[in-house]
Amino acid sequence: MRLSEVAGKVCLTFTGHDLEVSGVNTLALAGPGEIAPLLSRSYLPQLASSAAGVVLCEEASAPEGRACLLSPNPKLDWARVVALFARPQGCMQGVSPQAFVHPEAMLGANVTVYPFAFVGARAQLGEGSTLFPGVYVGEDCVLGRNCTLYPNVVLMAATVLGEDVLVQAGAVLGSDGYGYAQGPSGHVKIPQVGNVVIGSQVEIGANTAIDRAALDATRLGDGTKVDNLVQIAHNVQTGRHCLIIAQAGLAGSSTIGNGVVMAGQSALRDNISLGDGVQVAAQSGVGQDLPSGAMVGGSPAMDIATYLKMSLTLPKLPELARRVRRLEKALAERQDKTKESSHE
Amino acid sequence: MRLSEVAGKVCLTFTGHDLEVSGVNTLALAGPGEIAPLLSRSYLPQLASSAAGVVLCEEASAPEGRACLLSPNPKLDWARVVALFARPQGCMQGVSPQAFVHPEAMLGANVTVYPFAFVGARAQLGEGSTLFPGVYVGEDCVLGRNCTLYPNVVLMAATVLGEDVLVQAGAVLGSDGYGYAQGPSGHVKIPQVGNVVIGSQVEIGANTAIDRAALDATRLGDGTKVDNLVQIAHNVQTGRHCLIIAQAGLAGSSTIGNGVVMAGQSALRDNISLGDGVQVAAQSGVGQDLPSGAMVGGSPAMDIATYLKMSLTLPKLPELARRVRRLEKALAERQDKTKESSHE
Amino acid sequence: MRLSEVAGKVCLTFTGHDLEVSGVNTLALAGPGEIAPLLSRSYLPQLASSAAGVVLCEEASAPEGRACLLSPNPKLDWARVVALFARPQGCMQGVSPQAFVHPEAMLGANVTVYPFAFVGARAQLGEGSTLFPGVYVGEDCVLGRNCTLYPNVVLMAATVLGEDVLVQAGAVLGSDGYGYAQGPSGHVKIPQVGNVVIGSQVEIGANTAIDRAALDATRLGDGTKVDNLVQIAHNVQTGRHCLIIAQAGLAGSSTIGNGVVMAGQSALRDNISLGDGVQVAAQSGVGQDLPSGAMVGGSPAMDIATYLKMSLTLPKLPELARRVRRLEKALAERQDKTKESSHE
Repeated sequence: MRLSEVAGKVCLTFTGHDLEVSGVNTLALAGPGEIAPLLSRSYLPQLASSAAGVVLCEEASAPEGRACLLSPNPKLDWARVVALFARPQGCMQGVSPQAFVHPEAMLGANVTVYPFAFVGARAQLGEGSTLFPGVYVGEDCVLGRNCTLYPNVVLMAATVLGEDVLVQAGAVLGSDGYGYAQGPSGHVKIPQVGNVVIGSQVEIGANTAIDRAALDATRLGDGTKVDNLVQIAHNVQTGRHCLIIAQAGLAGSSTIGNGVVMAGQSALRDNISLGDGVQVAAQSGVGQDLPSGAMVGGSPAMDIATYLKMSLTLPKLPELARRVRRLEKALAERQDKTKESSHE
Repeated sequence: MRLSEVAGKVCLTFTGHDLEVSGVNTLALAGPGEIAPLLSRSYLPQLASSAAGVVLCEEASAPEGRACLLSPNPKLDWARVVALFARPQGCMQGVSPQAFVHPEAMLGANVTVYPFAFVGARAQLGEGSTLFPGVYVGEDCVLGRNCTLYPNVVLMAATVLGEDVLVQAGAVLGSDGYGYAQGPSGHVKIPQVGNVVIGSQVEIGANTAIDRAALDATRLGDGTKVDNLVQIAHNVQTGRHCLIIAQAGLAGSSTIGNGVVMAGQSALRDNISLGDGVQVAAQSGVGQDLPSGAMVGGSPAMDIATYLKMSLTLPKLPELARRVRRLEKALAERQDKTKESSHE
Repeated sequence: MRLSEVAGKVCLTFTGHDLEVSGVNTLALAGPGEIAPLLSRSYLPQLASSAAGVVLCEEASAPEGRACLLSPNPKLDWARVVALFARPQGCMQGVSPQAFVHPEAMLGANVTVYPFAFVGARAQLGEGSTLFPGVYVGEDCVLGRNCTLYPNVVLMAATVLGEDVLVQAGAVLGSDGYGYAQGPSGHVKIPQVGNVVIGSQVEIGANTAIDRAALDATRLGDGTKVDNLVQIAHNVQTGRHCLIIAQAGLAGSSTIGNGVVMAGQSALRDNISLGDGVQVAAQSGVGQDLPSGAMVGGSPAMDIATYLKMSLTLPKLPELARRVRRLEKALAERQDKTKESSHE
């Protein structure tokens, strides 16, 4: 593809000579036929030694003597440029005769079902959807258009996906929620008869688990992005455009607003509610409701500014204890002296 | 089903007119033909606006003017009522010709094996067991009666399941324990030749991993319920009726008694032992043996009452440090004054 | 196998009578025909009551009256002895007609592909490699010799494995990194066009997830051992012989040296760098670069010695706060008295 063509497709202007472009790469690795991103000024030292033929950058950072794609928002435009060169995963099209498709399943146009994928009774696959090998789509599932389920993804019965949902390999949607009643001879399972309902433009990470609701639905809002190995328990509700990073855990019936960020290994207690835009730091544990815009850290979580100060003090805690002991001793000695002097 | 029939099946009495019941739902969503649970008085506000035709509740909480199923133990009876209406997952019966069943495998009566499930040599499947698509049952595994393995569950060789074991999708039982010896040129794998032995009425969550023992067996006691994404290392032994919540991790050779509760993201160090009924709070890390009945929190874990008090003080730590500094200053000033006055 | 033959194969001497040996077991469970390990003196009490026919131990610990395999390094030699008796997983050889192998894939000699495994276009399987059921090897993957992928392992496109790589069931390599750009109407996916490159003698645990790089490669060095349920984000680089224990998480572009140990549930922030031999304690969170040899604990992590002292003080924090309050009161009272006395 010519650079001029790239620029046209992403609606950017370019400087320098037009040239043939073969792909994208990092500043460090790109060659004369590749485009590399300059996403912030901290990469300027790498730019100097880069062999990249084209640099995507803000106009103010554009180096001389090199072709540049000028962008008012380099990170966003970088996403678009990379998309021009990205090859989709996979090597097949159409419904494989080695797949199992239930006779009562309904498949939209241009659906791909790889060998060893399973589509259950009454499942509906939206137009352009793709099921990789080992995918299980249970009975009564409904997939919107252009959903992609990578290998070994499992959708238990009645899971609903919006449009353009991407599920990374090994993720499980619709597993039973963890619900038991205490019986006379052990825990009795409360059958989980709800389902999972996922919005559009949602992405779900590898080996993540999202439980079906006890009665109603576990819901993820449009545009929410869930990373790998995340646990989302039954009846959780997330807003739109949330970011839930790797190994985070949301306990049962927790509800989070729009644009919430849960950093890696963070956790929410069951039955709590977070407002819009709440940010939870890595490894934190939130045990109570939080208003919109709150930023918290720590386990249990506290205001992030307090948390950062507390974290700086924490290593000095043993020394602090020693200082308190010294103060107590000093005061006791003074009191002894005072007594002595008052007895004098 | 008529309400009278429901009541008969779960051995409860009902008040109000008999009516046709189509299913179960939450108080908020249930319609006139559905049963909803009133599991605690905190739901009384929802009851007022609920359209539920029938409410399952304690006799003392029974609302007037509505059919009620009266229960001395609403949560437990709710589990039983839901079970009357729950549809089992899946849409097939019998052994699929698209499955692989080794000629030396032994299948009990009424076994279901879906397409793309694999049953290895000498594996035994108990009567009424079901293997969903993508399940792998390695050679020499033994499954008791009525075991259900949801899609893509893996049982490595010689794994043993009791009766009525339910394994959620993607869980792995019998992966190699993490055991290496330091050699002259790196870590040398210690082959893990033990297995995994699971009791009866055990449930295991989605994408959970349970390692085989180095030599003997990793064991889970009857009635233990393991949530999603839990790590159970080699040689772990759990008692009966333990609850191990999502993303918890039990390190090698740790042993826990009966009725132990490990909350979400909590962890046990290797080679430690917890008595019966121990409760470990979320995100806690236990590094030493604990007696029966202990309740702990924190990382490293401490007595739960201490932990809760400590957690309340923690955000005040920077202020505490400032107060100690002020005390030191005040005392130093007083000592200066005293010196001055003694010099006067 | 005769004991003399065992000794010969692992190049150790033995004491006592030669005998027929059927396998290996723990000291507690071994019978007269089995070898048990005495890995440290703490097991001496178990030795006394053990029925083990043969004990592998250091010469100085060798019990009288029992056959012994004498070893200068019992743990390492135990690994070798166990390997003599370990049966490999699985029950088939060769390429199953029920597998899917793309016509453009290249298979080395003595490759085994089980039913329901999938090998994509142009994938190369090294000599002696084995793919268990449900394995997905995407297009353009390259596997070195003697790689073993247990059931339901997924290698997305262009993943590269060295030699003797063992991947436990359910692990995913090459899932998309978690990369988005903020757009006007939500997060826009940055296509992840890099790959995953794994060294030789690497082992990867069950249900672990390793993301492909955004542009370049996520790399694991030779001999590194990754436990179950670990998250390795895009662009992570690990050195050789690292140990990454269960449920640990390495965020994007973090780089760790050789021989680094990340204990269970620990985490690295994105874009940080750890030197060789760094050790990170369980549940710790590292948020800054660390030099070679550093040992840290806590979240956020601090020097391990400081962490251990801090942990001992932490439960006393509420009491410390009370003591500070008492000091303040005592000082205030004394100041009042001083004022009084100065007014007298």
